[in-house]
Amino acid sequence: MKIELIERLSQQSSHKTLLCVLDGLGGLPGPAGLTALEAAATPNLDKLASVGSQGRTLPVGYGITPGSGPGHLALFGYDPLEYEIGRGALEATGIDFVLGPDDVVARGNFCDISGNGVVTDRRAGRQSTDITADLCRLLSQIKLSDIEIFVLPVREQRFVLILRGPNLSALVSETDPQIEGVSPSVCRPLTGSVEAERTASLIRRWVNAAHDLLEERDQGNGILLRGWSTRPNLPSFPKIWKTRAAACAVYPMYRGVASLAGMDVINAGASLSEQIQEISAQWDSFDFFFLHYKYADSAGEDGNFEAKVQAITDFDTYVPELLKLNPEVVVVTGDHSTPAVMSGHSWHSVPTLIAGRHVRPDQQVNFGERAAISGELGQFPANELLPIAFAHADKLAKFGA
Amino acid sequence: MKIELIERLSQQSSHKTLLCVLDGLGGLPGPAGLTALEAAATPNLDKLASVGSQGRTLPVGYGITPGSGPGHLALFGYDPLEYEIGRGALEATGIDFVLGPDDVVARGNFCDISGNGVVTDRRAGRQSTDITADLCRLLSQIKLSDIEIFVLPVREQRFVLILRGPNLSALVSETDPQIEGVSPSVCRPLTGSVEAERTASLIRRWVNAAHDLLEERDQGNGILLRGWSTRPNLPSFPKIWKTRAAACAVYPMYRGVASLAGMDVINAGASLSEQIQEISAQWDSFDFFFLHYKYADSAGEDGNFEAKVQAITDFDTYVPELLKLNPEVVVVTGDHSTPAVMSGHSWHSVPTLIAGRHVRPDQQVNFGERAAISGELGQFPANELLPIAFAHADKLAKFGA
Repeated sequence: MKIELIERLSQQSSHKTLLCVLDGLGGLPGPAGLTALEAAATPNLDKLASVGSQGRTLPVGYGITPGSGPGHLALFGYDPLEYEIGRGALEATGIDFVLGPDDVVARGNFCDISGNGVVTDRRAGRQSTDITADLCRLLSQIKLSDIEIFVLPVREQRFVLILRGPNLSALVSETDPQIEGVSPSVCRPLTGSVEAERTASLIRRWVNAAHDLLEERDQGNGILLRGWSTRPNLPSFPKIWKTRAAACAVYPMYRGVASLAGMDVINAGASLSEQIQEISAQWDSFDFFFLHYKYADSAGEDGNFEAKVQAITDFDTYVPELLKLNPEVVVVTGDHSTPAVMSGHSWHSVPTLIAGRHVRPDQQVNFGERAAISGELGQFPANELLPIAFAHADKLAKFGA
Repeated sequence: MKIELIERLSQQSSHKTLLCVLDGLGGLPGPAGLTALEAAATPNLDKLASVGSQGRTLPVGYGITPGSGPGHLALFGYDPLEYEIGRGALEATGIDFVLGPDDVVARGNFCDISGNGVVTDRRAGRQSTDITADLCRLLSQIKLSDIEIFVLPVREQRFVLILRGPNLSALVSETDPQIEGVSPSVCRPLTGSVEAERTASLIRRWVNAAHDLLEERDQGNGILLRGWSTRPNLPSFPKIWKTRAAACAVYPMYRGVASLAGMDVINAGASLSEQIQEISAQWDSFDFFFLHYKYADSAGEDGNFEAKVQAITDFDTYVPELLKLNPEVVVVTGDHSTPAVMSGHSWHSVPTLIAGRHVRPDQQVNFGERAAISGELGQFPANELLPIAFAHADKLAKFGA
């Protein structure tokens, strides 16, 4: 659905919509021939399925394996091929850094450089997060004319570098050569614009200063930069949908993507129970809640089928508590599939469930990949899920007379 | 899927993909209420279906009956509405003529023209291919300044005319009036460009010279030209997909379409057995094999339901031999439906099957139109089939972080 059309048709509504994202929900059969979702004990989701409609969402497109960024953009109603979040921007977002409109950001690695200037280890032996944090503090001393600079640790050898100031451009080349045994690349402008020339020159100065500060070290004596990007220009979710939207996620990256879309982030502890308490406490302040649950994906990424089954089983036990909040529309889906057998994201469609007033029921009484094949919603692009959900919440006016 | 996205995400892989196209595979129920595919004895395809995913492909769009050109372009991943092969170009390709970048080509008919210059039979009584070949040799004598000219027989009264040289244009009108009882039309430029003016003038001179050479004849004393076109500008399949692609087809037109897409054509005899031998011999040289099997379509075109059943039954007996090659991904589909009851192509979707690593199974144990309705792949555009198949072959990197 085109966002312009949504903006034209959307209207305020007192009905509340709860979007539950079980990260990496979809899967492939495990040892007993069932997927993790099919194998999990999900009496509460099954009950929802029996009164709701099921279907299968395609996050990006046929055969395309989505990253978490595009997977969530699609669930928020954005076409992920139209709106991309750059890698640097996603990394900054993942540590709760709020990118400004003038920021240019890269992902950085500390690396090892030999006496003759060659990269010998692109990851500096995966040095500890503590060491990286110390080195980021050291590099924060570097000053460049009128530019504000942030050097922030992420995890292990990874950090982000943010340049803030007018007339900067992300159209500059990466310094990470992607292989070892060669020197770091020199940052160059990728276009002939004054901004790109200037930014590349600033980055070269910063890299030289960084290497001067690090040169006495045996390990982590170099830095590599890639994924230059700016804050993505996402149209505002609350504005498009005329809604008050809240995001509740334990992991910063998901809060970050929601925040880039203009949702309010509501903080919570690390457990699902605490998340639900927080949503409950804020129930009257918002019309739309995005609840992110990470552990189905984590288990899938680890190739741990049983842990994925358990993560889904665990989620199911909290469904009654969520339903007590009495949302008019409940959506249960994932941002992509993460089959344990593949130990990673995959292109497979994602089982998806909508329950609420005016749902047209199908004949499925269990929530799962096979059941979803014959579900009422069919197979459809994930960025169409929100229009369907919000239609059930009376949030879309009639098109045409 | 946009080709730009595929080019960005595609990567080399050691996994091999085998695309089996049973031309005109889809159908409508015959005398016993089953389609030809459902009625055929297909124990091997059924076994593949029971471990694979089924679905239904739409070659061009809802309600659109595809020609063989667009049908195959879609299977090769091109949007057939974006990339068209002109009729002249398709006809030339169908006789193994390799079109050059400077070529302008038309389909020709020999026709009968009366004393007063009126077309009395647009097909010259469907004169024999031998006569047409003789006349093509005769017309090859015509010379036009710096233009190279090819006049090549196709079948019965049909031939192709190719003009090769700089500054030619296909934006010229047809000389075939499409009805009898009127004179052949005079070729005119369709735009004001110098190239179109010049090309139309050259064609008028060629037509006049041809009529002079043919005027003594009782039959086949005129020619009609239509479908002016140039070589289609298809992005290279091997480049888009970073793959070594081979096409094995008995009929020249299918080799031709594959060749226009940049695939290598591997020759084989006229039988499926010989085709499989050839693919086997070349197995290590390619990552992707397109195997074309014509006879399901031929039988459908002839309105011969039993022959179509037999053609599919015959194909099935060779499936074990194909599987012995051990491709990681096997696709079985058609380029369009050819219901025997319609004696021609139709707009109906095409039953489609993917087997391979990481396929999400459905509950179908037979390959057929009805089973495909409840298949895991759903109904989807045929040009999305290859991205799905290649995802299974590890040929598509993750999109976004």
